[in-house]
Formats: sequence, structure tokens, C-alpha cells
Amino acid sequence: MLQQSPALDHVFHALSDPARRGMLERLSRGPASVSQLAEPLPMSLSAVVQHLSVLEGAGLVKTEKVGRVRTCTLDTSVLTQAEKWINDRRTFWEGRLDALGAFLAETKPADEA
Amino acid sequence: MLQQSPALDHVFHALSDPARRGMLERLSRGPASVSQLAEPLPMSLSAVVQHLSVLEGAGLVKTEKVGRVRTCTLDTSVLTQAEKWINDRRTFWEGRLDALGAFLAETKPADEA
Repeated sequence: MLQQSPALDHVFHALSDPARRGMLERLSRGPASVSQLAEPLPMSLSAVVQHLSVLEGAGLVKTEKVGRVRTCTLDTSVLTQAEKWINDRRTFWEGRLDALGAFLAETKPADEA
Repeated sequence: MLQQSPALDHVFHALSDPARRGMLERLSRGPASVSQLAEPLPMSLSAVVQHLSVLEGAGLVKTEKVGRVRTCTLDTSVLTQAEKWINDRRTFWEGRLDALGAFLAETKPADEA
């Protein structure tokens, strides 16, 4: 019953931190340099680089260095996997609840019908 | 730029573990007792109880004790929040990419049109 998927382990871990979610929020509006990402965050540049490394390790962000500037871009493919995992669980459970509701409606005692 | 939401911190942290995802997968098929949840897992009952406590703390699972049996039920409301957070980021970024594609198509040099 273990849901083995190292990719999902890393994605959900990456998403569990507010600073990392903030960086993804920024990158959903377009690519940014590391210093642009760091600018609004109340932390050191080295802390930002560590968070970025977690995001990159999880496959959520790609970075490319041109000259002295490293540009970060959102990669949505693993986000899609994570969204699908959640959606599958949620819709399966909601389907069960609907089926239960229909069953109870059908099996009402005659005097309540 | 911090994406402050303790609820999302806890949900994504809870989802980052394969045993906890396995327990949610099981509960998406219907309520289960703690020992039913533990049965297929290669770990001690006390480890299962600890994982369950993380899931309960994140609001993903509700438990109710009747007599000696504790029954666990999936709660999808915070799953919906997590799914929405991911979906918003993904669709915003994909919208940006589409807009960029349209812009580039419109601004093609005449000899390439």
C-alpha cells in the first residue's frame, strides 16, 4: 500500500515550504533571475539558493546560466503529476460518497419514501 | 512573496511520504479502522499511528473512536485547496506560454509569414 513515487515525495516536500511556494508563484508569472527571486524574500541569498536547489531537485524549476546570470523557469510537468494524484484521490472518494447517497435513497423504508 | 498558508504547509508535508499517500489511497476507497490501514504496511502499528497523526493534523483524515475501534475517514476539503493551489500556478504559467506563442506568431518577419 506504499505509494512509491520518489518524484511525488520530492514535489510535495518542495511545495510544503511557504518561501518555495512564493518562488513558484513568482515564476508562474515568467522567468526570473536568482536575484529577482530573492529580492522580495526576507532571507539571505544563500537561503534562497538552497530553496532553489530543492525546487530544481524536485523538477519544478529549470535554471540556465548565461554569463553571470542564472535564469529560473517554471517546469509544470511534475506539477501536473502532483495535481493528478490529488485529483484522482478526491474524485474517487467523492464518487464513493455519491454512490452511497444513491444507495441510501434507494433503500429508504417505504414509510419514509 | 511568502505564500503563507500553514494549512498548505501541513497538507503538502503530509503528502510527501509514500506511506501516508498509501493510507490516503486506501481511505479514498472508503473508511477503515487503524488496524485495516496498518495491515498492508511494512511498519509497526506505532509508526502507522504516527503517520495517521500527521494526516489528521493536516486535516486530511478524520477519526472517530467507537468502543475500542478507531475509524478513519478521508476529508477532501484541504485536498481541494492543495489541488487548487497547484492548478492556479500551472494554468497561469501555461496561459503566459500561450500568450508568448501568439505574440511570436504575430511578430514573425514578413518573409517568414
